Amino acid sequence: MMPTPLNLYSIFDYSQKMWPEKWIITRTHSGTHRYQYRDFGERVQRLSSALKALGVKPGDRVATLAWNNFRHLEAYFAIPLMGAVLHTINLRLPAEHLGYIINHAEDQVLLIDEDLLPLMVPIRDKVPTLQHLIVMGEHPNLSPNPITSTLDYEGLLAKAAPEMDYDPNWPEDAPLGMCYTSATTGNPKGVVYSHRGIALHSLAMGLANTSAISESDTVLPIVPMFHANAWGLPFSSVWFGANIVLPGPAPTPESLIRLMSEEHVSVAAGVPTVWLSVAKVLEHHQTPLYLRMVLCGGSAAPPALIRTFEQNFSIPFAHAYGMTETSPLATFSRLKSTLSGLAENEQLAIRSTQGALVPGLFMRLRRNNEDLPWDGKSMGELWFKGPWVADEYYRDPRTEDSFEDGWLKTGDVATVSPEGYVKLVDRTKDLVKSGGEWISSVDLENAIMAHPDVFEAAVIGVPHPKWDERPLAFVVLKENRQLTKEDIINLLAASFPKWWLPDDVIFLDEIPKTSVGKFLKRALRDQYHQYLAGSPPEHGAS
Amino acid sequence: MMPTPLNLYSIFDYSQKMWPEKWIITRTHSGTHRYQYRDFGERVQRLSSALKALGVKPGDRVATLAWNNFRHLEAYFAIPLMGAVLHTINLRLPAEHLGYIINHAEDQVLLIDEDLLPLMVPIRDKVPTLQHLIVMGEHPNLSPNPITSTLDYEGLLAKAAPEMDYDPNWPEDAPLGMCYTSATTGNPKGVVYSHRGIALHSLAMGLANTSAISESDTVLPIVPMFHANAWGLPFSSVWFGANIVLPGPAPTPESLIRLMSEEHVSVAAGVPTVWLSVAKVLEHHQTPLYLRMVLCGGSAAPPALIRTFEQNFSIPFAHAYGMTETSPLATFSRLKSTLSGLAENEQLAIRSTQGALVPGLFMRLRRNNEDLPWDGKSMGELWFKGPWVADEYYRDPRTEDSFEDGWLKTGDVATVSPEGYVKLVDRTKDLVKSGGEWISSVDLENAIMAHPDVFEAAVIGVPHPKWDERPLAFVVLKENRQLTKEDIINLLAASFPKWWLPDDVIFLDEIPKTSVGKFLKRALRDQYHQYLAGSPPEHGAS
Repeated sequence: MMPTPLNLYSIFDYSQKMWPEKWIITRTHSGTHRYQYRDFGERVQRLSSALKALGVKPGDRVATLAWNNFRHLEAYFAIPLMGAVLHTINLRLPAEHLGYIINHAEDQVLLIDEDLLPLMVPIRDKVPTLQHLIVMGEHPNLSPNPITSTLDYEGLLAKAAPEMDYDPNWPEDAPLGMCYTSATTGNPKGVVYSHRGIALHSLAMGLANTSAISESDTVLPIVPMFHANAWGLPFSSVWFGANIVLPGPAPTPESLIRLMSEEHVSVAAGVPTVWLSVAKVLEHHQTPLYLRMVLCGGSAAPPALIRTFEQNFSIPFAHAYGMTETSPLATFSRLKSTLSGLAENEQLAIRSTQGALVPGLFMRLRRNNEDLPWDGKSMGELWFKGPWVADEYYRDPRTEDSFEDGWLKTGDVATVSPEGYVKLVDRTKDLVKSGGEWISSVDLENAIMAHPDVFEAAVIGVPHPKWDERPLAFVVLKENRQLTKEDIINLLAASFPKWWLPDDVIFLDEIPKTSVGKFLKRALRDQYHQYLAGSPPEHGAS
Repeated sequence: MMPTPLNLYSIFDYSQKMWPEKWIITRTHSGTHRYQYRDFGERVQRLSSALKALGVKPGDRVATLAWNNFRHLEAYFAIPLMGAVLHTINLRLPAEHLGYIINHAEDQVLLIDEDLLPLMVPIRDKVPTLQHLIVMGEHPNLSPNPITSTLDYEGLLAKAAPEMDYDPNWPEDAPLGMCYTSATTGNPKGVVYSHRGIALHSLAMGLANTSAISESDTVLPIVPMFHANAWGLPFSSVWFGANIVLPGPAPTPESLIRLMSEEHVSVAAGVPTVWLSVAKVLEHHQTPLYLRMVLCGGSAAPPALIRTFEQNFSIPFAHAYGMTETSPLATFSRLKSTLSGLAENEQLAIRSTQGALVPGLFMRLRRNNEDLPWDGKSMGELWFKGPWVADEYYRDPRTEDSFEDGWLKTGDVATVSPEGYVKLVDRTKDLVKSGGEWISSVDLENAIMAHPDVFEAAVIGVPHPKWDERPLAFVVLKENRQLTKEDIINLLAASFPKWWLPDDVIFLDEIPKTSVGKFLKRALRDQYHQYLAGSPPEHGAS
């Protein structure tokens, strides 16, 4: 067979020949921008030409700091097509991390939305590799432009050559893009995507067995284009000829609903919090929608949310799971035809899982250096292998902690059912490891939080002289409610084995949280590290 | 990204983990055989073990001479999984070609259906590389077995190890299989398939944009497993978890209809003659069918056939095009959503074409060393490039004629519409090249054969002193009909430009044909080579 490489050129060339009449629609500050693939293709080539004229060379990193809009999409193609590396930067990062990753990636050029320029003010002088800032927008002559000596995106394109001589044989293992992912501690870690990985990931997204992106679709990626390539939707949509709708700057639930309705969106993808807020609006303002699928990922969607969409709105709701390191699609929740005879609540339980492995990848469930069975009970860490799974962090010694023997160790603990459905139960770092057995902190927290008097709860493992670790529960009650330690333990005893029960229950006014509102369990672990140190060896799970 | 190879192991391993409960159903001489993927998987491993015990090594060629049945499917996986090369042999070849390709491929082992053993009788002594004949069937102790010293497939499996230690890192560029394709003249030419090519071809078949093979399907490959891997359906079905129905020995239209009905087949694939004969039976014996798609390829399906299936039987009919050299899927006829507003006959005209290029491949329309536009009018030779397109014929000097600059020259002449739909108009060797312009022999033949008094017609180009070549028409009339040369020319003059009109019309009793019933134009060309040699230079297209 021919050694034709799997690269972005083959996607772009195919798309330009097959789908010149398809549409790309962007919500902008001032209204709606729309153009066709053929116009997109010319502007992609102009952008490549312009970057080349600026001195960008194959392998150079070109960063973007932008909302989901058509210029960002142009950058998605123009940068890798000329052999450079598309580095999408999360616009919600603190300035310190922003500076770190620009320096770590050694970005040469940054394409930035005009309304995001203020983000660069505090760090402009601290990123010496960055030679050019190109400002994207309709009115790039900001007054006052907070940063001097920027370039104007539209001006560059206007004078650039409308054709670019791309190399059809660009090697498939060459880097196409990169994305930094937050770490538990320390600076973000970089993941580099190859042309081959993106091409295969795109094929996986076009399969009838998974998200089935096709030319009949109109796709709305609500997930930001700086989050794992907007889950790969820009690449798969362009390849398979879907119309693309981009929500632009800071979309609200109302603006998303209007876009979905007006543009007849068939597939929309976002995290659960987006769908929760969309559902809240839809419940009070019925709007005609044409969705064949809501694609939900990023974190677990509550079954109630799935039920709301499917039963109240008649919109199929599909759960997917993955991470920056898996490009990101790793599992997709679609009910197997052989399970269609199950009762509705059993079907919902399956569809609320993270789903089944996507074709092309390998998955293991690991614990204590052993593979666990897919029995729906055994809890193990998920490991992935495959052509769109990272094999390292970019120039980062933390690679050692997350990769072993050619596999990615996700740090996610799950069970896998005999039918292959993955159900996340915890993070490895949050698991309580008691006497060689694993206790899911998340399961205990959910059970405690199900009590009507509880506002929130966290469970951590703390060192124990006999059992290695034992669970401690932290509970915040709703105002003016009263519960005792015994109430909590009795509640849990109804659902969990004795050795899962926390050694103590500590009532707090508030669980410490991270800047994005997640429990900061590390703070609790630091504070309560010695809490059970003096426990008698026979205490605990007996 | 990880260097995980695209090989058959990744397909098999995924399938065994994800779809152990799916079914493989075979029509046999005595009834119906059915088992599940998990049983299939064990027998695949037993077969690999047995072949290894017989001394088969990676790279060795292991041939099959078999109908579409479960043992053949086991061979499809067991042979490549152990690193050997699956060589599927066409059971309709004359003995001379059978012997040629076994010797040319240097097959070491042949797996043969018991009822096909007689095919080997005339050549058993002429294929010295063949060390073992393994007879597949329920009663391998044929009496009399026409060939001595054969092995019994079921006996070998029974005593073989049920687990095989496959190499997950088997290189993707290694050969997986091979298939010989008939040549215009001389011996068949061999095409070698790589693991990578088959994996990518399978992904292409699972796309929502093409045949969308999925786990909801029950797939019936009527196309023989010795024809370009049954169009790749065995691999894509196993990967994506479809139930598989295999029609067994010498299927009749009646047995196919029964299978489709009883097994609730959702996708059935075969050549137009199969669908013509199935349609004939269905018209008189209505049978409940559950097809979501009839997949038709191998040669062009008449629009009337498509209409019969869609309008009379309400069964969607999809046209695909490709060849042994393209694994085979190259184009697939699916109406673009943007064309759904066309009138029904216009839609039918598009869906009767060979379809649009499949994602992952490149296509050119070539003539006189130039690329022609996709305007629906320009006639050029189709060239293909891509990871599942052959780049040579196996150890064959004829490679030179069919490959140029990294592209496969198909020998098929086509137009391509602006929307990308390919319409075959002729074979390059049958085109009439007159004064630098191309005349489609097929178009002229179809126009002549549309006359109610004409039984059949062939058009060839013969050398001409001024115009290089000019068309000659050969016409066979139905019994007791009378037509003159002028009648034929006047008929054609209504639809074609003057320079397309044949220089002469010759009435014959019969058009010479090949053994499979195709026009043997070569015989006409040889006989009429000098026919226009004495023409005055001003004769012909003037």
